[in-house]
Formats: sequence, structure tokens, C-alpha cells
Amino acid sequence: MGQIKNTRILDVLKGSPVDRTPVWIMRQAGRYLPEYKKTRKKAGSFINLCKSPDLASEVTLQPIERFNLDAAIIFSDILTIPDAMGLELKFKDNHGPYFDNPLDDISNVQNLNDNDIDTKLNYVSEAIIETKKKLNNEIPLIGFSGSPWTLSTYMIEGSATKEFRKVRSKIYNDKKMLQTLNQKLVNAISNYLIMQVKAGANILMIFDSWGGLLNTENYINFSLDPMKKIIEKLRKNELTKKIPVILFTKGGGNWLKQITDSGCDAIGLDWTVELSAARKTVGENICLQGNLDPCALHGTKESIKNAASKVMDSYGFGHKHIFNLGHGIDQYVDPDNLEFLINHVKEYSKRYHQN
Amino acid sequence: MGQIKNTRILDVLKGSPVDRTPVWIMRQAGRYLPEYKKTRKKAGSFINLCKSPDLASEVTLQPIERFNLDAAIIFSDILTIPDAMGLELKFKDNHGPYFDNPLDDISNVQNLNDNDIDTKLNYVSEAIIETKKKLNNEIPLIGFSGSPWTLSTYMIEGSATKEFRKVRSKIYNDKKMLQTLNQKLVNAISNYLIMQVKAGANILMIFDSWGGLLNTENYINFSLDPMKKIIEKLRKNELTKKIPVILFTKGGGNWLKQITDSGCDAIGLDWTVELSAARKTVGENICLQGNLDPCALHGTKESIKNAASKVMDSYGFGHKHIFNLGHGIDQYVDPDNLEFLINHVKEYSKRYHQN
Repeated sequence: MGQIKNTRILDVLKGSPVDRTPVWIMRQAGRYLPEYKKTRKKAGSFINLCKSPDLASEVTLQPIERFNLDAAIIFSDILTIPDAMGLELKFKDNHGPYFDNPLDDISNVQNLNDNDIDTKLNYVSEAIIETKKKLNNEIPLIGFSGSPWTLSTYMIEGSATKEFRKVRSKIYNDKKMLQTLNQKLVNAISNYLIMQVKAGANILMIFDSWGGLLNTENYINFSLDPMKKIIEKLRKNELTKKIPVILFTKGGGNWLKQITDSGCDAIGLDWTVELSAARKTVGENICLQGNLDPCALHGTKESIKNAASKVMDSYGFGHKHIFNLGHGIDQYVDPDNLEFLINHVKEYSKRYHQN
Repeated sequence: MGQIKNTRILDVLKGSPVDRTPVWIMRQAGRYLPEYKKTRKKAGSFINLCKSPDLASEVTLQPIERFNLDAAIIFSDILTIPDAMGLELKFKDNHGPYFDNPLDDISNVQNLNDNDIDTKLNYVSEAIIETKKKLNNEIPLIGFSGSPWTLSTYMIEGSATKEFRKVRSKIYNDKKMLQTLNQKLVNAISNYLIMQVKAGANILMIFDSWGGLLNTENYINFSLDPMKKIIEKLRKNELTKKIPVILFTKGGGNWLKQITDSGCDAIGLDWTVELSAARKTVGENICLQGNLDPCALHGTKESIKNAASKVMDSYGFGHKHIFNLGHGIDQYVDPDNLEFLINHVKEYSKRYHQN
């Protein structure tokens, strides 16, 4: 593989100077794009789209062709792992993913198969290889996985429920089940991420969508520690030991200090935390990613500009910021608004990279 | 009215010494109690239960008869105000409250009627008067309202949606509408709370269930500032100027300093913030309420004990803590587990009130 041409995000992750703040958008390949909807239709179903390397690669590149972003992120779903472990992943239209047979007790967990994740998820590998070819080393490609806790919530609840009561109660009435599940998931996720790097991913991101449901002790034990173990496994592997890892706990604003100590290279922040406050908490050695309120994209051009400028002003001078939303872009956003945002970030952020 | 006999919560709100940590439970009158279900059935519908002073009073007292708590909270719904303002409140079984005609634009807001809230919500007044009679001054009675932002979310979304995208986007595309709505709600809520004190409420609580959806700037402008205005109005009224006010923003852990400056007497905390960390942020002059993870009540007796002890240990010595859950008790809790918790709090907390 040759050298990546646009190294802004890789530079920022190392703390090297850049000319402007790099930018990519969570869920940048998605339903707000008409071209995505076309490919999705061609695939027949969301799950087919994930499992067809050529189509997954096609949608991965759509936002890159449109917006000139600083990174691509491979198109996939965080629930491919539970699917590969034996829980059949299904999707209801407008209701998100679900499993018909969620995990009830430790025997269900013991029946899960965390071996041969590479083989079963080979379609992700192929999608990455194909995407890398087409990217032609212009920009880096991000690989990703859901966090063990986040995968546990779906695997135990069956879907994203309102209060996540079943999985949260397991902490108090069946800790053993969760711990056993965590072990399997740490194993599977680590192998999955290593596989993605083998296929060509340049950066890894762990999405902890539901860590924010926990209290501090439970967050550390059931969400952060397993993520830490994954990072340790990556660091011990020759291939992945230097791959930058971005860790994003939605609702994790109270635990930024602890997240910093996990060994990750960057912390993803949702929009409820101010970058300036986050920087004070985490010190100077770690990169921050985020954190525009995704709803700002439903505003007027003027308000998008204001809101995005405030994010950059809050960060201020320095080279350890990757601009992003505080959560995934939603399907109702006008792509023109996103283009306007990206251009504004590129232009406005220059002032903070003069030194 | 005579003197309240059990003054623990009132003492703690003033910072006066108590023999043990006082305790009450958010949503203590609710579906987890079989006797509640009976009364609810008698009422025919949830909305009838709220609007029948004798039945509302009956369910208010049910947990008091069972558990020997340190306060009662009047049974009602936070959406009685939008209902009184002209949006007809409805309930679907197992789907929570909704409005058929949510607010779309400023003209809808202008059509809302925030006058005569006292008259329209007289049923709450009557329920308080009846409850106070039956309480016979044994313990204080808490009155409450939803926060302006939280009422806005329901009034604009129509119900509790997944992402609250419509109301959150209004901040960026129709600020004026939200500001106008806030003015009306500040007015209505203030009058409503004053009415509750007139009827006999001894403490007031403002529930800001959805403030945690906002970024810092928006939280301050659209959630905290309106609550502050309500507190100012209460302080200017002869009847309510000394009534203690508890302010609870779920997910507000990042803004405890700003909440402290709102003029409230106590801050309600959800379970994601540690009491010891919160105390460091807010200083010594304000009372803290909370914050056991409600899911702990689905645990074994041993784990309930451990989790509750950790909450008290985290607070440590001092007289400015009201024990509570970090959110409302859910319908699936075994009432015996709640009784076990309450007894444990009463016994265990004594060690922190020796001085």
C-alpha cells in the first residue's frame, strides 16, 4: 500500500500540525443522500447492503465523491458481530435492528460462537479491500465496531428499547452473565478490528452508543474496561499496535478522565459537552472529535454557521481536533446543508492553525 | 395549618442536622403497587385518575401507608399544564401521553391560553387539600411541575419521541417560537406552583426530564433560564418566597455549577453522576437529592444493599442529602425490594449523621 495523500486526520491523531481542522461526519454514508437510497433499493434490504461488498463499498464512497471529506468510514452495521455469533440480525422498516431470540441467561451466552469471526465477517473485509482500491490512497479509511456494552444491550434487549431495563438490571441480578458475554465480545471485536486493519483500515473507531446509561462504577466495569481490553489486544498485535483508535461513548461526558486513561488516541464527544471544558478535563495529550449538535443541520445557513463556529471557537488554537457531529447525521438533513457546513469548517478553522 | 412532625427533609433543605438521611422515591405512587392498580382501574383511565381529587389523593397516600417515607408527592402528571392551555392530553396504553395536535409554529403557540391556570387545574388544588387533611401534618407534601423545556418537547413533538428532532431543530430554525412558548410556560408554571403552595404543598420540585438532550448553550437558554425565571417569580411572591425548590434535570450532570446558580435549594441527580463528584462541583451550600440507579431495585437484596450503601458512602458525612432514586421507580419493581431499600437507607445512613 502506498502513502495516504490527505493525512490531516492521521496528523491530528499524532498531534502534528495541520493547515485546517479535518472533518468527517458520523453516518456520512446514509439515508439523507438520494444516491444512498438508490443503492439501498438495489440491495433489496439493509442487511443485504451490509453483506454485499460491492454495494457497501459503493455507499462508503458516495459522501466522498460529493463532499471532499478528510476520511471515509466503511459502511457496515455495529450488529454484524452478534449476527456472526449466531443471533440472526433482522431489520424492521423504520424500527431499526432487532433479534428474534435475545439472550436471557448465561446458557444463551455460552452458546454464542465467537470463533472464526474473520471468516464469517469476510464480507466486511472484502468491502474494505474494494473501497481502498477505489480510494486510491487519497484519504484514510476508518474501520469500526460497536463496544461490548453496546452490543450487549442489543443482544439482551433484542432491540433499542426505551429504558434498556433488562440489560441494566442484569448488572444487579446476573453480573456473571454480562461478564461472560463481555469476554466473548472482547475476543470477537478485537479479531474483527484486526481483520479490518489487515484489509486496509487506517484508523479504528469504537462506538459505545449506550455507555451513557450507566452509573460511574458500572460504566467502568461493563463498558470502559472491556474497551480497554480491546485496545490492549490491538496494541499487542504487530499489525495494529500503531493504528489510531477513537473511542466514542455517547453520554460519556462525566467520564472523560477515565476514558483518556483507556489508551485510546482520540475521544469522540457528543454535543452535550463543551470542547473547552473537555480539554480541561483530559489534558493536552489526546485528540478530541466532535461535536456539533446534529439538529443544527436543520437550521438556517446562518445558524449552521454560528453553531459550527462556536464548536471551533470552543476548541480554539491547537491541532488535536477532528470536526464531526456529536452523533450520526439523520435521514432528514438536506445534503446542501451538510455541504455548507463542511465548507464552513474548512474555511473558518484555518484561523486556529496559523501558528 | 399546624407544624409538620417529620421535618427531616425540610431540615436537610435548610442544612439543619438530622438523625438519618431522609428518603422518598420518585414516582412512589405508581404501577408497581397493586393498590395503585386497583385505584387506577376504578378511575377508568389515567387522565381520570389525575383529574379526580379523591382518587389522586388516595394513590398519593398509598406508598406512605406502606413504607413510612419522609415525604409524600402529590399524584399528578407533568402534562396537566399543556392540557389546561388547550392541547388535549391523551394516553395510549403502554405508549405514554400524547397530543393529537402538537405545536408546529408560532401561531399555534399564540393560540395557547396561559390564563386562569388556577381555575383549570383546580382539581390538583383539591387533591392537595384533601391529601394534606389526611396526612395530618405527619410528613411534608411535595408539589411539582414539568420544566418549560420538558413541556415544550411534548407540546411540539406530540409525545416522547426517540430523538426529539422536531423540538431540538426549532432551536436552529425557529428560536422565536420556542421563546414565545417559554414565556407562556414560565407564566403558567409559576401560577400553577403558587396555587399548589396555596393548597398546602410544603416543597416544590421542577422535573426537567429532557434538558439533557441539549448542548450547554441551549440548555442554559431554553431550559435553565426559564426555570430560573420561575424560581424568581416564586421568590417574589409572599406565599412562596421561602418554599424550598428542588430542580431535577435528567442528564444534567455537565451543568451542576450553572444549576446551583439558579436559586434552587436542592439539585436532583440522576444515577450517572457520583454524589461525591457532584458535591465538589456545587460547593457546600446546596442540598443534593438522589441518586440510586432505579434498575438496582431489580437486583438481589445483597446487591440492593451494596448499591444503596455506595450512594450514601459517596455522599459521606453531612446533612444536605435526600436519598432517592436517580429517576422514577418502574412498574416492574417488587414492592418488597423497595421496602428493603428504604429500611436499609434509614439504618445505614445513621453513621453519617453522628456529629
